[in-house]
Amino acid sequence: MILDDITITAIATPPGTGAIAVIRLSGKDAISICDKVFKSSSKSKNLSTQKPYTIHHGTIFDESRPIDEVLVSIFKAPRSYTSEDVVEISCHGSQIIQQQILELLVRNGARLAQPGEFTLRAFLNGKIDLSQAEAIADLISSSSEAARRVALQQMRGGFSNQLKALREQLLHFIALIELELDFSEEDVEFADRKELTTLLIQILTVIDKMISSFQLGNVIKMGIPVTIAGKPNVGKSTLLNRLLNEERAIVSEIAGTTRDTIEDTINLGGITFRFIDTAGLRHTKDAIESMGVERAYNKITQAKVILLIVDAQISTDEVIHSVEEVKTKLTDDQRLIILLNKEDKADKEQLNQILVMLKRDYPSLYALTISAKEGHNIDQLTNTLINIGLHGQPETNEVIVTNVRHYESLIRVKENLEEAIAGLKNNLSSDLLAIDIRQAIYYMGEITGEITTDDILGHIFSKFCIGK
Amino acid sequence: MILDDITITAIATPPGTGAIAVIRLSGKDAISICDKVFKSSSKSKNLSTQKPYTIHHGTIFDESRPIDEVLVSIFKAPRSYTSEDVVEISCHGSQIIQQQILELLVRNGARLAQPGEFTLRAFLNGKIDLSQAEAIADLISSSSEAARRVALQQMRGGFSNQLKALREQLLHFIALIELELDFSEEDVEFADRKELTTLLIQILTVIDKMISSFQLGNVIKMGIPVTIAGKPNVGKSTLLNRLLNEERAIVSEIAGTTRDTIEDTINLGGITFRFIDTAGLRHTKDAIESMGVERAYNKITQAKVILLIVDAQISTDEVIHSVEEVKTKLTDDQRLIILLNKEDKADKEQLNQILVMLKRDYPSLYALTISAKEGHNIDQLTNTLINIGLHGQPETNEVIVTNVRHYESLIRVKENLEEAIAGLKNNLSSDLLAIDIRQAIYYMGEITGEITTDDILGHIFSKFCIGK
Repeated sequence: MILDDITITAIATPPGTGAIAVIRLSGKDAISICDKVFKSSSKSKNLSTQKPYTIHHGTIFDESRPIDEVLVSIFKAPRSYTSEDVVEISCHGSQIIQQQILELLVRNGARLAQPGEFTLRAFLNGKIDLSQAEAIADLISSSSEAARRVALQQMRGGFSNQLKALREQLLHFIALIELELDFSEEDVEFADRKELTTLLIQILTVIDKMISSFQLGNVIKMGIPVTIAGKPNVGKSTLLNRLLNEERAIVSEIAGTTRDTIEDTINLGGITFRFIDTAGLRHTKDAIESMGVERAYNKITQAKVILLIVDAQISTDEVIHSVEEVKTKLTDDQRLIILLNKEDKADKEQLNQILVMLKRDYPSLYALTISAKEGHNIDQLTNTLINIGLHGQPETNEVIVTNVRHYESLIRVKENLEEAIAGLKNNLSSDLLAIDIRQAIYYMGEITGEITTDDILGHIFSKFCIGK
Repeated sequence: MILDDITITAIATPPGTGAIAVIRLSGKDAISICDKVFKSSSKSKNLSTQKPYTIHHGTIFDESRPIDEVLVSIFKAPRSYTSEDVVEISCHGSQIIQQQILELLVRNGARLAQPGEFTLRAFLNGKIDLSQAEAIADLISSSSEAARRVALQQMRGGFSNQLKALREQLLHFIALIELELDFSEEDVEFADRKELTTLLIQILTVIDKMISSFQLGNVIKMGIPVTIAGKPNVGKSTLLNRLLNEERAIVSEIAGTTRDTIEDTINLGGITFRFIDTAGLRHTKDAIESMGVERAYNKITQAKVILLIVDAQISTDEVIHSVEEVKTKLTDDQRLIILLNKEDKADKEQLNQILVMLKRDYPSLYALTISAKEGHNIDQLTNTLINIGLHGQPETNEVIVTNVRHYESLIRVKENLEEAIAGLKNNLSSDLLAIDIRQAIYYMGEITGEITTDDILGHIFSKFCIGK
C-alpha cells in the first residue's frame, strides 16, 4: 500500500469498449496535470480558474497531436469523492483512447492508482469511515437487490453511526473509570456502576443483534447456498445449465447489460443463489462419480436449499429411499425440493402416484416433475426458489452485518462486554474493569476504522476494483 | 429506426462492473424525468433550475427506496452531444444498480435508446454531418493508433469540410447552367465553360486522391492483412497463438484495461494486423489439411504480408521449392517472410547454410529462424512486422477515406465528373451537362448526409453501440 500525496489516475468505468469511458484523477495536481493536456473549446480557458462542479468541453492533446474530444468535470477539495481535487475526463470509449489518455496523464506527473486507492484516500482524509469504504466495494460488486440495499445502507453510515454512538457512550464511562484510577487511594466512584451495567447490557443487546444478523448478511452478500444432489446421470449439470440460461434470458431483456457470469451464482427475481461446489458438477462428471458419498453429504449440510434430483423413471420405493437418505441429514432450517427429472420419458400414471405419495408422506417438502433437458416446469422451480429466497429477505432499514471482518470484531466486542458485565457483578477492581471496556472500545473502533493498521487497510483496499 | 421526440436513455459506459458507470438521457424531458427520481444533497434543489454544464450530488430514489448515491451532469439544448437537453447520471458501477436506474428512468417516461440513437439525433439536429457520425463509431471501435487518428480527423470534419466546399462550388455552377436552360432559346452562356472545366478537373483531382487513399484507409481500419502459409504441422497455429500472447502481454502492462480479444486481429506497436482465414488455422486442423492448394493461394493474394513457415529440419532444396512455389504468386506490393520454425530441433550448421543461401538468392525477402513453441526470435518477427506496418502509415492531417460507403459514393462522383468533363470537351448541351453535374453533387451529398434515405441511416446507426 502506497501512502504518498502524488496525484493518482485510473480508468473508472468498466473495462472494454463503450460509448464513453471515464478517467479519474485525484490529488493536489489533478487540475494542473489536466490543464497541461486539455485545450478547452472556449478560448484560452484554464481549468484551474474554473468553478468546482462544472463541466468543460475540449480536446486532449499529446503535444500537438489531438487524442480525443472530451468533457472534463472539475471537483475541488474537500467537496469531492476523495476530499482532494478531482478531475474526471469523459472520453470516447475506445480502448486505445483510454490507454493513450491514461499514459499521457502518467507522463505529465500522475501515477497509476492502486486498486481502491481513491476510496483509501477518502478514508484517510476522513471523508468516510472504514465500514463505509468497505460498503462501497460491496455496493459495486452487489449482484442482487438485497445486497445492493444492504451495502447502500452501510455506505450511508447506518451501521457505523450506531456503533460510533455506542462507542462514544463507552468512552464517556471509561474516562470516569480511569479518573477513579487516579484517585485509587481515596476509593471514590465517579462512574455509577448501576448505570454502567445498564449501558453495557444495552450495548450487548445491540451487538448481539448485529452478530446474529450476519448469517442473513452473509447469505445476502454471497447468495443463498443451494446444492443439487442426486445420483450420477440424473441430470444435475443439465439442470444447472438450464437455470444459468434462464438467468441470461432475464438479464438480456435489458439492452446493453451483458453481464460477466459469476461462476455458479444465479440471480433469480433479484435474489442470488449460490451453487455449492457445482463447478465440479458442470465440468468433470468423473469427479462426481468418484466423489465419496460422505463428501456429498457435507455439501448438503452447508446448503439452505437442497435440490434432490431423481430419475422419474425409477420406482416409488427407490424415490422414497432417496428422499429418506437425504432427509435424515437435514435441519429444520433447510428446504428440500424433490425434482422428478426426465418426466417426458416416464409413465404419467406412475409419476402422479409418486407425487401424491410424496405430498401425503412429506407435507413439508416441495415436489416437482421436470425435464431439465426440455425445460419443462423450470419456471415453477425458479418461482419456488424465489419464494424461499423472499422469505429470508431483510426488512427495510434493518441493520445487517455482511462483512466477515466486522463479524469477527463484533464477536470480540461481545466477549469483552460480557467480561465487563461479569466483572461488575463481582465487584471487579476499576483497573481490571477498564481493561475489558478498553478492549470493547478498541474492537468497535476497528470496525469503523478509528483503530486500524496498514495490514488491515492493505487487505481491505487491495480487493477493490481499479478506479475506485 | 424510430424517429420520435421521446426522451431516450441508455447505459453509455462499457458493459460490466466498474468503479462507476454512466447512464445517459437525451430529449425534451431529460431533466424533468431525472428530477422525478433524483434528490439533491443540497436542500430542495431542482435540476431544471440549474445552469447547464454543472454537476450535482444526490441520491436516486425509486419512490422512497434509495437506489444509489450519484452525480448528475446537466447539459441544455443546443449545447449538448445531441443538441437536445441531456442528463448524465454517474452511479456506482454495479450491474444491478445500472439496471435499476435504467428501468426507473423508463418507468418515469424515457424509452430505451436504439444503438447509435444519440448520434442519430445529433445528425438529425444538424450538430454533425453523416460522415462525422460515422467517424464517431469508427473512433469508438478504433483498435490502433492510426485508426484512432484517422477517425478523429474525420469526426472533426477534416474530410467532409473539403467535400462540402467543393460541392458548394459545383452548386454555384449548376445554378448558372440551369439558368441557361431557362433562356435556352436565346443561346446564352452564364457559366464560363473554361472555368467550369478547370473546376471539374480540380475537383476530380481531389476526388481521385480520396479514392486512392481508400486502400490505405481500409488497411488502417481493418488492419494489415497477413497470411500464415505453410504445410500442415509446421507450426502455423502455434505461431498465431504465440503472437496473440505477445499482444496480450503488451496490452496488460496498463492496469485496468483488459481488452476483448478480437478474433485473429493483433495489435503490435500500435499497428493492427489482420490474419486472413486464420480461424481455421487455429481451430480445425483438419479443415486446413483438406483445404485445396488453390484456396490457400487465394488467401495469399489478398495478403499484404505472407508468413511462410517451413520446418527448419527439411533440406535446402525443399526450402527453395517452398519459397519458389509461393514467390511466383506474389506481386511487388506483397512482403514475404520465411520462418524456419522448430530451429531448436534443427542442425545449426545446416540452418546457417539455408539462411546464407536465402539471403543470396532472395535479397528482397526476410528470413528468420524461430521456435514458435519456445518463443525464440518472436520479438524479431514482431519488430519486422511493425517495420512493414510503419511503412504504410499515413502522414499527419492527410485526408484518408476509410469507409466503404464513402468510397462507393466517391467512385460515382468520379464517374459523373468524368462524364461532365468529356461532355464539356464535346460541347454537350446544357441540359445533359446539368444531369452529370447534378449526379456528382448528389453523390457528394450522400457522403456528408445532405442527401440521405432512411435505409442508409438505419444501416449506419444500427452498427453503433448502445449509449452512443
